[in-house]
Amino acid sequence: MGTLVPGIPGFPDRAVITEVGPRDGLQSEPVFVSTPEKIALIQSLLDAGLRHFEVTSFVSPRAVPQMRDAAEVLSAFRDRKDAHLTALVPNMRGAEAAIEAGVDAMVLFASASESHNLKNVNRSRAQSLRGFADIAKLAEGTGVKLQGAIATAFGCPFEGEVDVQAVVDLACAYVDLGMDYITLGDTTGMATPALVIQRVQALRHLRGEAALALHFHNTRGVGLACVYAGLSQGVTHYESSIGGLGGCPFVPRATGNVATEDLVYLMEESGVSTGASLDLLIEAAKLAERVVGRELPGQVMKAGPRLAAASMDSVRTANG
Amino acid sequence: MGTLVPGIPGFPDRAVITEVGPRDGLQSEPVFVSTPEKIALIQSLLDAGLRHFEVTSFVSPRAVPQMRDAAEVLSAFRDRKDAHLTALVPNMRGAEAAIEAGVDAMVLFASASESHNLKNVNRSRAQSLRGFADIAKLAEGTGVKLQGAIATAFGCPFEGEVDVQAVVDLACAYVDLGMDYITLGDTTGMATPALVIQRVQALRHLRGEAALALHFHNTRGVGLACVYAGLSQGVTHYESSIGGLGGCPFVPRATGNVATEDLVYLMEESGVSTGASLDLLIEAAKLAERVVGRELPGQVMKAGPRLAAASMDSVRTANG
Repeated sequence: MGTLVPGIPGFPDRAVITEVGPRDGLQSEPVFVSTPEKIALIQSLLDAGLRHFEVTSFVSPRAVPQMRDAAEVLSAFRDRKDAHLTALVPNMRGAEAAIEAGVDAMVLFASASESHNLKNVNRSRAQSLRGFADIAKLAEGTGVKLQGAIATAFGCPFEGEVDVQAVVDLACAYVDLGMDYITLGDTTGMATPALVIQRVQALRHLRGEAALALHFHNTRGVGLACVYAGLSQGVTHYESSIGGLGGCPFVPRATGNVATEDLVYLMEESGVSTGASLDLLIEAAKLAERVVGRELPGQVMKAGPRLAAASMDSVRTANG
Repeated sequence: MGTLVPGIPGFPDRAVITEVGPRDGLQSEPVFVSTPEKIALIQSLLDAGLRHFEVTSFVSPRAVPQMRDAAEVLSAFRDRKDAHLTALVPNMRGAEAAIEAGVDAMVLFASASESHNLKNVNRSRAQSLRGFADIAKLAEGTGVKLQGAIATAFGCPFEGEVDVQAVVDLACAYVDLGMDYITLGDTTGMATPALVIQRVQALRHLRGEAALALHFHNTRGVGLACVYAGLSQGVTHYESSIGGLGGCPFVPRATGNVATEDLVYLMEESGVSTGASLDLLIEAAKLAERVVGRELPGQVMKAGPRLAAASMDSVRTANG
């Protein structure tokens, strides 16, 4: 697919997708997913052509029981030299475990808004950054890289609007710590295309120093419109979750992460190569649905690729 | 809202939304909705600031029982001179009834693909156009306008890809019949942003002769990304369905029309004025949910406006 698709002016030719379902997705799911099921899910995503994964998080097993098998899940894929494996790390203890487990990179996170950082990790942003400096020292010489995630980058559930300067300041602090990959996280689904364009343009001077990645939730239905805005600005890294695994922490009926297969569908149909097979991603999304035992919000997994319906012989009685 | 929103380069300042939920939406719903419920739903949408409605269709009550009260529903709003009321009309008998009922415009429809037209209305496209010419004669001097909908404008469930020239040919035939409003319908959710751009550009020479409207289904999750593409091309007319009422005729679990409140959210947050109140649209979407007795796919109706969460005090334990 892709060869007959007219490209969209300004869009990049290819994009990198980091699958965050095994971590960000499963962490929000109420059902405990067994270690073999997690491994099977990641394997199905590898088979579908994905190569970048946020595999797990090294957090307290008491606080997040779903992630208690972090080292075991990681070890199943440590020999896949073609795969880039990251894990979320909240503190020094997590960093030690992540390095020991053999991650390629640790994802450190702070919030652009002070209130969210305080509520989320019980520290000020300045305290978070001091902790990251200690982790950076620990990582020195290990070959393990650091990535920085900026939570509430498009709005805060406590403060409302977040000043773009707070996002820029945190991104600059991340670069100073040696991070070469920075994700803007849409923690509670407050991103809009206009905010995406504004933030990407404000961070343009960091290009060359760090790759910029975008991570959207579809909480208000505009997740893929935000991706479209990011692509129009030349952003080439995106994070998503197979089937749309995960949810919005604040809104019971709302969906969470943008679904990986819907993202790939949008990109490939826009002339942006992802290296992934849509058919195999749909299979992986169905596996994810079985694993968590609920209907997931991904759309393409239900409708199939564009031309999948071309042999159906039922019709409706009027136009639509 | 909207005043502090940075606009998006190339987007229009304002857009017109035609609400098609009462017709396209309800027609696909299995539950029969009573006449007072339909009237209450339309009234709530008027209260929310919408002014363009596809109210009903004048079809055979045997074929489409949901629309058997077409004249009664229309008559409830005939005195609203600030509202533009249209109805779908499949044939001469429907046209007579629609004119009698006092519509502002009749929506006539044919498919860009011959197979779909044959299966949908049991006529060739050429036969459909001859029928439209007869209806055009009937409408002469009545003050009732004609609008043209092009079904399968972005792909056909039987033929697959639809040549853009087939869309242009049908649009030109509509203009020749005196239609000054042409909708490209994404009947089975096959539209993509690249196809939207291609088709809008191919129809650019019709601007001035006819307004171009876009009607997307969110079957594959890219409905609002397609709207984004349309806005980037300066298209100012869109059709949507409150709450995402309606479904995809071919795919049981897939969603149908783009939800009006999600569309308004995207537009207002992109600096495009719609004249509608998002809060009141959310109330209307909740009414629509009660009326059809099932959860609707609209997202903003569940999550609320962007800043609605700003006073919540629950948090999750890690970033997202």
